[in-house]
Amino acid sequence: MRAAIYQAAGTVEVRDVPDPVIVEPTDAIVRVVRACICGSDLWAYRGVIDRPAGSRLGHEFIGIVEEVGAAVAVIRPGDFVVAPFQWSDNTCPACRDGIQTRCVNGGTFGAAGTDGGQGEIVRVPQADGTLVAVPGGQAATGPDLYPALLALSDVAATGLHGAVLSGARAGSTVAVVGDGAVGLSAVLGARAVLGAERVILISTHEDRAALGRDFGATDVVAARGEEGVAAVRDLTQGLGVRHVVEAVGTPDSWDMCVGMARVGGSIGAVGVPHTTPQLALFPLLRAHLTVSLGIAPVRRYLPGLVARVASGWIDPGRVFDLTLPLEQVSDGYLAMAQRRSIKTMLVP
Amino acid sequence: MRAAIYQAAGTVEVRDVPDPVIVEPTDAIVRVVRACICGSDLWAYRGVIDRPAGSRLGHEFIGIVEEVGAAVAVIRPGDFVVAPFQWSDNTCPACRDGIQTRCVNGGTFGAAGTDGGQGEIVRVPQADGTLVAVPGGQAATGPDLYPALLALSDVAATGLHGAVLSGARAGSTVAVVGDGAVGLSAVLGARAVLGAERVILISTHEDRAALGRDFGATDVVAARGEEGVAAVRDLTQGLGVRHVVEAVGTPDSWDMCVGMARVGGSIGAVGVPHTTPQLALFPLLRAHLTVSLGIAPVRRYLPGLVARVASGWIDPGRVFDLTLPLEQVSDGYLAMAQRRSIKTMLVP
Repeated sequence: MRAAIYQAAGTVEVRDVPDPVIVEPTDAIVRVVRACICGSDLWAYRGVIDRPAGSRLGHEFIGIVEEVGAAVAVIRPGDFVVAPFQWSDNTCPACRDGIQTRCVNGGTFGAAGTDGGQGEIVRVPQADGTLVAVPGGQAATGPDLYPALLALSDVAATGLHGAVLSGARAGSTVAVVGDGAVGLSAVLGARAVLGAERVILISTHEDRAALGRDFGATDVVAARGEEGVAAVRDLTQGLGVRHVVEAVGTPDSWDMCVGMARVGGSIGAVGVPHTTPQLALFPLLRAHLTVSLGIAPVRRYLPGLVARVASGWIDPGRVFDLTLPLEQVSDGYLAMAQRRSIKTMLVP
Repeated sequence: MRAAIYQAAGTVEVRDVPDPVIVEPTDAIVRVVRACICGSDLWAYRGVIDRPAGSRLGHEFIGIVEEVGAAVAVIRPGDFVVAPFQWSDNTCPACRDGIQTRCVNGGTFGAAGTDGGQGEIVRVPQADGTLVAVPGGQAATGPDLYPALLALSDVAATGLHGAVLSGARAGSTVAVVGDGAVGLSAVLGARAVLGAERVILISTHEDRAALGRDFGATDVVAARGEEGVAAVRDLTQGLGVRHVVEAVGTPDSWDMCVGMARVGGSIGAVGVPHTTPQLALFPLLRAHLTVSLGIAPVRRYLPGLVARVASGWIDPGRVFDLTLPLEQVSDGYLAMAQRRSIKTMLVP
């Protein structure tokens, strides 16, 4: 089969690799229908973090189950499934707490020795604890639903998790710092899933702001730094916002979040802080802030989100603004790195 | 009147100062019945932070109201009152959110231009929003209740706040890092106020551990650092603790808290992080932790705590293990700095 391979910063290639086979009785083999490129894939592509040359890429995919191991009881061949970006047994203490991204038997697609999502076929460990089948199966799942279902494998659930970590709920006022796919998805999650009343999106890109409005942002602040913080305070009687979603991970983004949080407020952070190793405590202390971080446990949210997508309640797939064949994956990385694409979908 | 004055690191003296008078119509004049020395007073005494020479000291006191301004409607002359360590109007947005320590009209006793608690008489700004009268007044408030009521002015409420920030509630398992008066009070608050089922106190001092047990600690870990973390994990099937109270503020204490927190857990921090300006984000991200900080809004908790003390439900005053006349305040600072006293009470 064909699969995307990381060669070096700036270099991604599609190569022939062996077809995966069942290794553990809990495995499933899934033929990928759609995959995509993640903002987190860009960290290595940009040279910010190291990644082994020759490693597989991609951790977001939807597909059709071709084969299951002897111990797989729920997922069946023929199921149309959404995969979270990490696998999990969904039975260990962390999973039972809803933190499947800390499963004791978990792992990330694309890590050493595993298949990546950006390929034709994927061996999925812990299939029953990982995959969520779309109700109605293939017959009910037309290509028009593919983008929305694919978005659930990471960004839609990660954005929602940021909003959940921020404590947002029905009636809340929420601010979202970050207008990438995760930030935009946080807007959607806060409004359409959690029922927030007001969502302020920080976005200096008109096209992203427009999608943010479609996703339910009630206000857009087109300014960053202190100017952006001042604008958010102006929108909130000077008090700031109780629930802030950090969806970038940079020091500038964190400064904005802390600056715009209302006294006693909460910051839910899903931006990976590669460039923000430490956070100053005194500003948090002075403002009585709560900070929650975590790699989104997508599996926790998948059943509810799949149902919402299948019923047409939400369409998180609108974050995809570029679709390429898998063979052109390299163009997709470049487009996202140059911010010409919010998020790129791949067709194997 | 006589009042304690900060002269320099290691030097505290009692001097004659002018009797306070009503300045604002919202003021009250309170004759101090008991005051005490705070762990936070020791930061300057030890030279860790600067404090202006000549400034008043102390922010914890109970007393009897002698006079009130024309705009004071609830507090009356003759009331026996508990003062939180900061005053507040109790009506601004922050106060209505229960964060009276960010009151727009608030301030701390002992700050420049104000009276300190370690003196004979105190002018209390925003008397109605600040002071809480003991039901039954002087007649119902014998000297046996003084230590418990005095403890409410800071440590009992601060410890409780740490437990609240950690998310502890009925049935919780809680760990408390810090066996000073605040940490011990967190044990009491977690158990007797919030209803936690299990409280693990980290304490390497036998006398403090004994008081912690009396306050409701179900387990004591007499080890610090990685050894202490390992011991807490041993007590919790290797999983760690969902609710951790940070009551020290040092890097070692923070490391312990992060190390012993269960995946998805919460750290409620009330230790002032003078020596921990920054906190590493990746360990929080990896463990899906929530961190909440804040200078305890004592006023929020006072009515409930005063009622609990008056009814004999709790006795937080046992943190006082040394009582001195105000004139010997300097001996009290030295005793606390040398850890010969957990907390020293002063009699004006």
